[in-house]
Amino acid sequence: MNSSSSSKLIEEAVDQMSSLPGIGRKTALRLVLHLLDRETHEISRFSNSFTKLKSEIKFCKKCRNISDDELCSICNAKGRDHSLICVVQDIRDILAIESTSQYFGSYHVLGGVISPMDGIGPNDLNITSLIERVSENDISEIIIALKGNMEGETTGFYLFRKLSPFQTKVTTIARGIAVGDDLEYADEISLGRSILNRSPYSDSVAK
Amino acid sequence: MNSSSSSKLIEEAVDQMSSLPGIGRKTALRLVLHLLDRETHEISRFSNSFTKLKSEIKFCKKCRNISDDELCSICNAKGRDHSLICVVQDIRDILAIESTSQYFGSYHVLGGVISPMDGIGPNDLNITSLIERVSENDISEIIIALKGNMEGETTGFYLFRKLSPFQTKVTTIARGIAVGDDLEYADEISLGRSILNRSPYSDSVAK
Repeated sequence: MNSSSSSKLIEEAVDQMSSLPGIGRKTALRLVLHLLDRETHEISRFSNSFTKLKSEIKFCKKCRNISDDELCSICNAKGRDHSLICVVQDIRDILAIESTSQYFGSYHVLGGVISPMDGIGPNDLNITSLIERVSENDISEIIIALKGNMEGETTGFYLFRKLSPFQTKVTTIARGIAVGDDLEYADEISLGRSILNRSPYSDSVAK
Repeated sequence: MNSSSSSKLIEEAVDQMSSLPGIGRKTALRLVLHLLDRETHEISRFSNSFTKLKSEIKFCKKCRNISDDELCSICNAKGRDHSLICVVQDIRDILAIESTSQYFGSYHVLGGVISPMDGIGPNDLNITSLIERVSENDISEIIIALKGNMEGETTGFYLFRKLSPFQTKVTTIARGIAVGDDLEYADEISLGRSILNRSPYSDSVAK
């Protein structure tokens, strides 16, 4: 089944829907026809949610997380340890870490990683604002939580050097074998790191 | 990763995106954040394509296919055989049949099938307009191309009885084993029908 229909309006809607990542034209057509079955006000609400999001969304002036106000709900939270900063690539990482319920500090969103191949240098990221936060506040620890690929490691090392003058503790999240994974199927680099960064038995089991 | 973010705007957009069939909240969040990365005018174009579709779409007054004009491109086409009517459940079926390039007649969209369980009776479907088409035009054959389930068969039989006064040939699409399927894994009903409705060897191979 292809999606060439007799209507330019359907074509345009399918074009737009299939421009989303992971949505092919066949799925897009199914979604568009589903939308077409809805009431007009429901479709307006569907469409408006995206334009409103773009026009009204703010970025937290402290951590660059998305926010409805000047400061995001995490930077505004009283129960959190604001002397801890966890540096992440984007807001998806915040959501992922928040869902673990294991971290109660603040965040800093870089907005990407250094990637010469994509033309992204340190000045394209929210690094200056991170340095300012560290120099102007009493920060006890900076946790670098970036992807374990070359760009992530490069960015982590760059940050580590930039932050070294401040005498603040800089740490990075543990790399190793995922909980429940078989050792024999793990890649050598992760397995090697998990041996190098081994921890006392009681510590790792307690958590 | 859950999608509870610090922003009500994101929440609303994720709610709307995940209201589409087959899109979970995790995928919806990924799609919404992808949209957020786009330019404002691109998001407007995305959103407008759906509201515009709903407000401007017309239904072909002859066959009830969706259309940009009074008559759809199929009913308007000169090269097609308008004495043939293929009766389908919805416009997806038209697209599916069109993509086979084996049919060059016209269509009639019922808009559903008779389903007492869902409270859909004959009067909720475009059956009256089909009867009118058959009585007012010179129709040589009506091909019933509905789903092979109970509702489809019931609707087919209802149409067959309604159309019998017109002396027009009424046919139904062949049911049987799909091309390339193993006989041993086929369901008994399809296999039984494929034997009952067997055709001369040369006919089925030529096509």
